[in-house]
Amino acid sequence: MVVGRRSGRRPGKRDTRDEILDAARQAFAQSGYDATTIRAVAESAGVDSALVHHYFGTKEKLFLATMDAPVDPRRYAEKVIDGPRDQLAERLLHTVLALWDSPKGSAAIALVRSSIAHEWSAKLLREFLLKRALQPIVESVEPDPDLARWRTNLAATQLMGLLSMRYLLALEPLASAPHGQIVELIGPNLQRYLTGELGES
Amino acid sequence: MVVGRRSGRRPGKRDTRDEILDAARQAFAQSGYDATTIRAVAESAGVDSALVHHYFGTKEKLFLATMDAPVDPRRYAEKVIDGPRDQLAERLLHTVLALWDSPKGSAAIALVRSSIAHEWSAKLLREFLLKRALQPIVESVEPDPDLARWRTNLAATQLMGLLSMRYLLALEPLASAPHGQIVELIGPNLQRYLTGELGES
Repeated sequence: MVVGRRSGRRPGKRDTRDEILDAARQAFAQSGYDATTIRAVAESAGVDSALVHHYFGTKEKLFLATMDAPVDPRRYAEKVIDGPRDQLAERLLHTVLALWDSPKGSAAIALVRSSIAHEWSAKLLREFLLKRALQPIVESVEPDPDLARWRTNLAATQLMGLLSMRYLLALEPLASAPHGQIVELIGPNLQRYLTGELGES
Repeated sequence: MVVGRRSGRRPGKRDTRDEILDAARQAFAQSGYDATTIRAVAESAGVDSALVHHYFGTKEKLFLATMDAPVDPRRYAEKVIDGPRDQLAERLLHTVLALWDSPKGSAAIALVRSSIAHEWSAKLLREFLLKRALQPIVESVEPDPDLARWRTNLAATQLMGLLSMRYLLALEPLASAPHGQIVELIGPNLQRYLTGELGES
């Protein structure tokens, strides 16, 4: 491999890629997504920044690779944002249910399962859920940054609870219910978190 | 030990107790709480039913022991049920937050963490949450059995989501918020699940 020949770099072997991923996981878990730089990841892995770019492209793609994420939620976020404000929760629920019930969904669910079991991957999941998945959607309807953080947190409780109960614990009747019924039952609650009155807070 | 002397029983050693617990975990996970009998657990552990009663008392206590549960949620359920119907969610949230933030809470949270990571303990947790914790509360306000099952499922999504996000993933601002603020923000949503209109379903 050409990249292996340049000075100051390790050879581009399979385990170099893994070392970069390990360093990236540590960095994202420790410093969060925003404060982590490709340069810091490269330094901690003992490689050149250009090698990290070579393997993973952008910081966003590196992050998705550390999560072993089956999909990039930001692509879904655009579809959810696009439409009437008062049906935002409905679109979000239809989108996540379609994803979770697809073949890619089982990988996503395995990811959540292991993230909850392990401290460091819980931190990664938190970054992933907030920065990539929910925050862009909430910011499309909530200009106040403090309120946007709360709405993101609250929506996360409802979505993670739905995911845990339908897929991880398989509660019935929820686990076998069609998407339309779940949207009808949970949609109004999620919509309040996204756009509704939240009281004095 | 006297129990060890009777015919047809194994000696009441420490590992007999563990064997009973193992058999009980398997039985509860496989058949659910209701369909599991002390007799079946005893048979599968190769001991006399009386020995199971001797060690664990009732089926309910045996179940709590298999979960290694730090508290019996049924005792809390009575406190939650007692009060005005339209403040049921408020009382439930105050009760679970006080419990989860207490020293006993960390044991409960560890239990949830490991239950989500492992298939068989997920099944136990499901039984535990439904039969012991939420179902009695929901049945105190909802006479229709199908609707009661749905309300229990929906309330479970909200409570498990709150627990996961506040304690397991430690989302901010949720993780540091005082109980009163969380009750104000989440209470109306939980109240809809417990007693509100749920649409056509």
